[in-house]
Amino acid sequence: MRTAVILAGGWGERLWPLSTRERPKQLLDVDGGGTLVSRTVRRVEPLLDLERGLVLTGESLRATILPELSPIPEGRVIGEPAGRNTAPAIALAAHVLSRENPDSVMVVLPADHLIGDAASFRETLEIAIGAAEKHDALVTLGIRPTRPETEYGYIRAGEAAAPDVRRVDSFVEKPDAETAALYLADGSYLWNSGMFIWRAERILRETAKYLPDVSDALDLVTGEPGGDEFRSSIAEYYDSVPSVSIDYGVMEKADDVVVVPATFDWDDVGAWSALERVWEQDSMGNATEGDVLLVDSRNNVVCSDGNVVAVLGMTDVVVVSTGQGTLVCPKDRARDVREVVAELRLRHERRRS
Amino acid sequence: MRTAVILAGGWGERLWPLSTRERPKQLLDVDGGGTLVSRTVRRVEPLLDLERGLVLTGESLRATILPELSPIPEGRVIGEPAGRNTAPAIALAAHVLSRENPDSVMVVLPADHLIGDAASFRETLEIAIGAAEKHDALVTLGIRPTRPETEYGYIRAGEAAAPDVRRVDSFVEKPDAETAALYLADGSYLWNSGMFIWRAERILRETAKYLPDVSDALDLVTGEPGGDEFRSSIAEYYDSVPSVSIDYGVMEKADDVVVVPATFDWDDVGAWSALERVWEQDSMGNATEGDVLLVDSRNNVVCSDGNVVAVLGMTDVVVVSTGQGTLVCPKDRARDVREVVAELRLRHERRRS
Repeated sequence: MRTAVILAGGWGERLWPLSTRERPKQLLDVDGGGTLVSRTVRRVEPLLDLERGLVLTGESLRATILPELSPIPEGRVIGEPAGRNTAPAIALAAHVLSRENPDSVMVVLPADHLIGDAASFRETLEIAIGAAEKHDALVTLGIRPTRPETEYGYIRAGEAAAPDVRRVDSFVEKPDAETAALYLADGSYLWNSGMFIWRAERILRETAKYLPDVSDALDLVTGEPGGDEFRSSIAEYYDSVPSVSIDYGVMEKADDVVVVPATFDWDDVGAWSALERVWEQDSMGNATEGDVLLVDSRNNVVCSDGNVVAVLGMTDVVVVSTGQGTLVCPKDRARDVREVVAELRLRHERRRS
Repeated sequence: MRTAVILAGGWGERLWPLSTRERPKQLLDVDGGGTLVSRTVRRVEPLLDLERGLVLTGESLRATILPELSPIPEGRVIGEPAGRNTAPAIALAAHVLSRENPDSVMVVLPADHLIGDAASFRETLEIAIGAAEKHDALVTLGIRPTRPETEYGYIRAGEAAAPDVRRVDSFVEKPDAETAALYLADGSYLWNSGMFIWRAERILRETAKYLPDVSDALDLVTGEPGGDEFRSSIAEYYDSVPSVSIDYGVMEKADDVVVVPATFDWDDVGAWSALERVWEQDSMGNATEGDVLLVDSRNNVVCSDGNVVAVLGMTDVVVVSTGQGTLVCPKDRARDVREVVAELRLRHERRRS
């Protein structure tokens, strides 16, 4: 049984004020093709048994994104009572799926990435699923870099493990610009896509080995997804587990991790600078969306979801104005929008107290 | 009879999107002390016979600003059917006032300036009125510069004409920064405030001499302000007259123009850069108004009239977001906001056609 586990926690705070808690990034339609999460589901529908799929999202987001998830049944959309990063979410999904069917293969997909060619994506996934089924491998997808990107982590691919499958030599942190250029030239580095394919039982074994706290807490989980027992039991589970990513917690430590190099267009839309690649650019290099007016301005990213946003004499900045607020920053500070969001959260808490 | 002629045409487009056609600059309360136009009226109330005052404003603005003009009677608020700059407006006011009372002295005041010390302002005005009455002079107020401002025109003051009154050697265009520094050091240059004091009959004689087209068109004006006859007659007048400023049309050409040097705080609030002087600055030199969040940002002018405006990693820019729209530009391009407004107007016209 092959199915999808869609990770839809978080709200994409680095795209504030376009994304918000009430309109999380996975619900944005950044290029007119539909919400990111609905396309994540539709993209794998021809390939996987989505009736058995699982979605993990914040409890407060659950009702909002439910309508986007068909044909995944409502009962299989799990509202996480707390954010604990990816490893506890993946372990919980693996626990549920392996109980249902010991042969379950799970395709772990972030809900908020942009992928260009769905058919090419599915071809890559079939190779990955094959490796997971035949060799019980831990498989990840690595995207062939097309630019010296400093906002992605990288995977250094080693020798061939099977046709179109390579061993992972190492996972590499986000590089500086110089290192990113070396990676691009080298040819053996791939972007870490955050997509994983493995048998549910295999990742449970790895979790037991590298994250015993998480593994032990799975004993707390009882009942079936969609039921009250399950819901109250996972509250205990999320209370018990540490917050840890699957990359750091398992992938960087495990043996025989393999990567399927992929060539489909892929973007994690991780920050405002990404929209520069997504939105149409004018002859002055401005990427814009909505009612925007530019005078003597070059290479900006400008977005309005309502009234006109006018930019005069500016270069290399992000300007976004929505019903939630307005953001202005240099493009090369776009990753630091988190600081703004953190400050807004502090203010909010101060006002409430 | 001494009265005020308040020039309240235009809407202050360089303060868009805080000022708009529907909320013109003269109706802004930039520092919490009341609207600029209401303070213009109140400031001269102890000194002038405002029952005989006149206000000239755009026909479309008339109803909006009326409530701010008391005790100037409603009938004496003239809606201009078209903008023709200051000379035709002042000639029309002089025509009305001199018909009512040949000895009328008119104090011509822009409606949208900020003046710090009203008592000091009135003392200066009394000197100016004395010069207009005793010597039938064309009097202007010149503000002693406190910084090398490049956004104001200057008046070069010459020899004394009377106590506290000096002859005007010349009117000088907005200088570049170097020249402005020389003017400041020189001591004989004053800021051209756009405030004028003269007998109505005197300015009519000058208008006849230097702007005969305007003067001739005054023959079209019949009836009393507030009446239908007057209203329809000035439609013809505004149709006939050229658009010309009193500075260019009369003051720069006329003989025996005098200036009263003034030391009260004065600001024409002519562009966003002016708000830097008006609004409180934080320790990083940011002048802000409304719900603003700054991270790693210095020397900016930031304004919100609603949702939060967040500025991250920016220096020396203007960021304004209102219910009308959002503006971002470098502070030193603030004067060019006109270009944005012109472009918006074009768009609007294109959409309508």
